[in-house]
Amino acid sequence: MDYLSEKFKRLGIDNAAGQEERQQTAGLDLRGDPLPGPAVNFSHGDVDAHEPTPGALDVFVEGYKKGGCVAYTVYRGSGDIRKDVAKKLAAFTGAAIDYDKELILTPGTQGALFLALGCLVGRGDKVAIVEPDYFDNRKLVEFFDGELISVKLDYLSQDSCAGVNLSALEESFKQGVKLFLFSNPNNPTGVIYSEKEIRTIAALAKKYNVTLIVDELYSRQIFENHPYTHLRALAERPDNLLTIMGPSKTESLSGFRLGTAFGTAAIIDRMEKLQAIVTLRAPGYCQYVFKTWFNEPKGWLADRIIQHQQIRDDLVAVVRAHEGCKVRKTEGGSYIFPSLPPMDVSISDFAKIVRKLTGVAITPGTEFGPQFIHNFRVNFSQDHDDAIDAVKRVMDIMERYRSKL
Amino acid sequence: MDYLSEKFKRLGIDNAAGQEERQQTAGLDLRGDPLPGPAVNFSHGDVDAHEPTPGALDVFVEGYKKGGCVAYTVYRGSGDIRKDVAKKLAAFTGAAIDYDKELILTPGTQGALFLALGCLVGRGDKVAIVEPDYFDNRKLVEFFDGELISVKLDYLSQDSCAGVNLSALEESFKQGVKLFLFSNPNNPTGVIYSEKEIRTIAALAKKYNVTLIVDELYSRQIFENHPYTHLRALAERPDNLLTIMGPSKTESLSGFRLGTAFGTAAIIDRMEKLQAIVTLRAPGYCQYVFKTWFNEPKGWLADRIIQHQQIRDDLVAVVRAHEGCKVRKTEGGSYIFPSLPPMDVSISDFAKIVRKLTGVAITPGTEFGPQFIHNFRVNFSQDHDDAIDAVKRVMDIMERYRSKL
Repeated sequence: MDYLSEKFKRLGIDNAAGQEERQQTAGLDLRGDPLPGPAVNFSHGDVDAHEPTPGALDVFVEGYKKGGCVAYTVYRGSGDIRKDVAKKLAAFTGAAIDYDKELILTPGTQGALFLALGCLVGRGDKVAIVEPDYFDNRKLVEFFDGELISVKLDYLSQDSCAGVNLSALEESFKQGVKLFLFSNPNNPTGVIYSEKEIRTIAALAKKYNVTLIVDELYSRQIFENHPYTHLRALAERPDNLLTIMGPSKTESLSGFRLGTAFGTAAIIDRMEKLQAIVTLRAPGYCQYVFKTWFNEPKGWLADRIIQHQQIRDDLVAVVRAHEGCKVRKTEGGSYIFPSLPPMDVSISDFAKIVRKLTGVAITPGTEFGPQFIHNFRVNFSQDHDDAIDAVKRVMDIMERYRSKL
Repeated sequence: MDYLSEKFKRLGIDNAAGQEERQQTAGLDLRGDPLPGPAVNFSHGDVDAHEPTPGALDVFVEGYKKGGCVAYTVYRGSGDIRKDVAKKLAAFTGAAIDYDKELILTPGTQGALFLALGCLVGRGDKVAIVEPDYFDNRKLVEFFDGELISVKLDYLSQDSCAGVNLSALEESFKQGVKLFLFSNPNNPTGVIYSEKEIRTIAALAKKYNVTLIVDELYSRQIFENHPYTHLRALAERPDNLLTIMGPSKTESLSGFRLGTAFGTAAIIDRMEKLQAIVTLRAPGYCQYVFKTWFNEPKGWLADRIIQHQQIRDDLVAVVRAHEGCKVRKTEGGSYIFPSLPPMDVSISDFAKIVRKLTGVAITPGTEFGPQFIHNFRVNFSQDHDDAIDAVKRVMDIMERYRSKL
């Protein structure tokens, strides 16, 4: 098999969140009757249950009517929009952003991650990632022929920090890691890195001259005022640092495909060059919708957080009611990452069986690291009652497959 | 300099169409007074002068109101939309398309090209391209570490065909070319490949087992009923074939970022895997706008073609009135690619000077192949009178720099 065939064989999406409708389900060990109920797709949030930011469509229409000056922008995105977004993100993260040099608008934060890794990862470059973490981090490193070094997040035995293994991280930096990439709050566990963890990561990166990418996609949806540290605002921050955020999740604006990356100007310059050949620019009229970001009606964000906290609490209780099941309470974002007792089927078959018998889509833990063979991820940005009902059915199916050994 | 720095140094965008506002203009040899007039940007079409397809915004709003089922789609794009688009593209191109296996929706045709080359070009693979042709073809091959082999298009000395050097093409195939990529109508010259040229390309690709990518972005905007041959409808077509089209140009829908690629199922599968880590999917609500494509009000396309034909004719006359200037009449699409007599400044400095003295943006010929040091490209999808006025001023500036040798 040639080099590209090998690469694309590894680049599987059969179990990827969002692709469930294309799965093959022949040959599964189906036990018992279907459990009917709402067909919840836990692979992403439900933007019908939690609607896009009020006014988003109006702003899009306004942009469309302005015409050509909005449809076509420089590749890094409209200057006016960058000016507005940079000001808001600087205030939110606590450190200045030069809108013209240090910010790029991208098609989704996935777009930002892709561009960043395309600019920073050459053949054989060592890249440290956290396990578990967003599944595409791993795929991106593989696509760009980097060498993955994984660092464990011991999230279940901690509660005052995320649980990243800082000595393993330093060891990887000593071994020549060029780039370290992590999400905070962590996807899929929803844990937030402590100030001490963030300060240590920043200081280590500076000491060993490692580039950092901090994916802060979910950093606005923080529960119970949990402390949150923006690495970019620290004195310890390294020279090469990129922060990634976007309005697809908390703000339910995913249908517009919008993301941002901000940080070191030289990285942003490269990202723009790459964006020019990847897709030219984030969709012009959609860029206009950034105007609604950090500009929501008073009380809107607080309400959204309270609604999600309630769903989280009730789902965590459902999971914990089953013997041998563990889950840490989400501190930020819309994910839980329950761990199940041993079953007679693999976690990826379990996800397919669940979909077949209940109509509910979950994401197998192995998407987030090969060792998560007992976990699954749920995006609980759903209708409250549907989500509770759906996770109850998932757990009932789990009982049918619990190992008797 | 390391491998990535080298790569990104080559990946310049300073002279790229659309980036003019970020150009540095210090140190230019400016001769004479500015020539005031409309500030026309010839690097892309003017969607204010030629508006988006009627009803595009209404369809977008309809999609937005449908909500989550439109916002989130599988990575290759909404099944319903693919079904509709496949049917229309099959009718247009004259050969069937399996909507589920042979079609992907992408963020612009640039997105389709990027995904296709990312799937097909490995390190050191030989890729044939035409010179002149769309400038990003070259950049994409370089980004994926392919080896470029250029084949000359002798467009000025032909009028019954595009003028591609078929014997050089066959020679490149014999030398091990894996992929041949070309646009038809050609960007930037606007010439259309003859049936004989297309049949020969197809047969050669089949004979030497070369993969073909045919970029048919402008294939709906054909002047004077010039004959047009869709390679994919021929019996000679090779096994590995991808056709690329989208509604950004003729239909002025660029602000939505929409493109399609259709052809060999195995290539589409890989492209979907890659799209999943590049940007997930074409913007969900925007995908809905494909409903307007090939579904325009009666007479709309014919009117658009007639309007553009008039602009073309008048611009060609302006260029030809200057001694030593040559231009072939556009057969399809919105470009002309005039060639100028020798000047005292390089073509890229000329473009910057023109912008400084007239406010008019043109694209230097060297973006389309290093040998086009006397050419520039104009996208004439502009307001008629503004376009004529602007090209007159460009030609007047040219006279100030004409070599006296």
